[in-house]
Amino acid sequence: MTFNDRVEAYIARIEGVLDHYLPAESVAPTILHQAMRYSALSGGKRIRPLLVYASGEALGVAPDMLDAPAVAIELMHTFSLIHDDLPAMDNDDLRRGRPTAHRAFDEATAILAADAMQPLAFEVLATHPALRDHPAIQVRLTALLADACGSRGMTGGQSMDMTSEGKRLDPAELEHIYRLKTGYLLRASVLSAAYCRADVPLATLHALERFVDALGLAFQVRDDILDIEGTTAETGKTGGSDLASDKATYPHLFGMAEARARADELLKQAMDAIADAGPSYDGLRWAARFIVLRQRA
Amino acid sequence: MTFNDRVEAYIARIEGVLDHYLPAESVAPTILHQAMRYSALSGGKRIRPLLVYASGEALGVAPDMLDAPAVAIELMHTFSLIHDDLPAMDNDDLRRGRPTAHRAFDEATAILAADAMQPLAFEVLATHPALRDHPAIQVRLTALLADACGSRGMTGGQSMDMTSEGKRLDPAELEHIYRLKTGYLLRASVLSAAYCRADVPLATLHALERFVDALGLAFQVRDDILDIEGTTAETGKTGGSDLASDKATYPHLFGMAEARARADELLKQAMDAIADAGPSYDGLRWAARFIVLRQRA
Repeated sequence: MTFNDRVEAYIARIEGVLDHYLPAESVAPTILHQAMRYSALSGGKRIRPLLVYASGEALGVAPDMLDAPAVAIELMHTFSLIHDDLPAMDNDDLRRGRPTAHRAFDEATAILAADAMQPLAFEVLATHPALRDHPAIQVRLTALLADACGSRGMTGGQSMDMTSEGKRLDPAELEHIYRLKTGYLLRASVLSAAYCRADVPLATLHALERFVDALGLAFQVRDDILDIEGTTAETGKTGGSDLASDKATYPHLFGMAEARARADELLKQAMDAIADAGPSYDGLRWAARFIVLRQRA
Repeated sequence: MTFNDRVEAYIARIEGVLDHYLPAESVAPTILHQAMRYSALSGGKRIRPLLVYASGEALGVAPDMLDAPAVAIELMHTFSLIHDDLPAMDNDDLRRGRPTAHRAFDEATAILAADAMQPLAFEVLATHPALRDHPAIQVRLTALLADACGSRGMTGGQSMDMTSEGKRLDPAELEHIYRLKTGYLLRASVLSAAYCRADVPLATLHALERFVDALGLAFQVRDDILDIEGTTAETGKTGGSDLASDKATYPHLFGMAEARARADELLKQAMDAIADAGPSYDGLRWAARFIVLRQRA
């Protein structure tokens, strides 16, 4: 059985834990909980939680311990999507083929639904039963997630992305934005599995970091390519919306051919970083290929 | 020396810790860090951190251990102010006598500056040196803060506040909104000091909860009174903005005389809850009187 055969079960597992922690739609304030569930249970690819479980397989960490970081990271990702889509930011009407949260509800509700996902993510880390007897691990996971999502991580990347519109960036500047905006949360996904054990050798940690740093860049370059190639039906987002807004993207700045070559090169770098590892790393290899070779966002 | 004599030193202490944790304005993304510092270091009354230290005095907890929860709570409070002021919510132009974040910067930057304060708050709890050897306390504080700010706490209260506009609420409904919107974070301020010790008697905890539950309501009723009484110069907010927007407030629904009587009654309830406690509780008594009798918001 390959990791691919386990993906469906992992996704069901993630959605079960999300469903458990998200308050029911009938709980007041009902509109807020409806909006939270609408956005968090809308059938995303769950790439980050899958990376958490794949890293757990690589390092021999039980899935039980990974449920909290997997779901916490997915909640933070969902929070960022809702705010990125807002009129004041990317002003997108569609996400995953459905109206964005501020279109399906209203702007205030969308802002607040995302706002409430942040504390929920940290609450999951602080209260999940499988971590209850491991407070030092909970604290490390909390610090990791907070660092990945803050002003020097994901949220900072979104800020840089907004201010880069219409600017001519060089590759290093663009990749720095990518690293913050997408890379750090992917990195946290891989490292959170490692943080569940105290005995992961430094060399293993470094290999995983090299793997996920290359993968994070590849992910974003691939996302940009898909945005330009894709019609709305394929990507679930409004087609070419990044191009229309004159935002800095890899294909936009350097052309599609170079973007494709860069994505391939980064995938190879990621695979090379874990080339010496055994078959327990096959889940990570699957995740890397899935992320870079996927046809639909 | 009374608590009043120590307030200035406590405020300097809070601002020192905030200044330490907020990235410098020169750190990229500079506009985001400028906006974060603009909002977090704009001379608020620091009522919540003062409540943390006053509770610490009551329970004999060293200020060192309280710095992290005090600052984490103030960051969450600041996050909520920035988002509450947004055009999609209360659409306020002034806060603490200065342009609101989205007026001083732009809407996207204001949204993101607040977004980045949430992870920073949890990062402070997870990384502050005084708590480093107390992971179980860090986890309890994390759960407390997350619960206070989530969809069944502060953010849920703001959602209810938005949807209550123009509705005729009864006192119980209105006080439920107040409890979520303001009460839970004040409650977390008092309880966070108690959570720094494992040996606080249950009776003490319950007295503190009764104290802060009454105080939280009194705070919000007083805030509504000030909003109507106050000119912009006095409150630092646009005068009467809650009345203009037809939002549910105590004086709006029940009249000024009843609102004043209710605030007095709640202050008495709060004071009664800790009447038997000794002089170490004088800081909490000072905080209660300050909150309810203050002339300026």
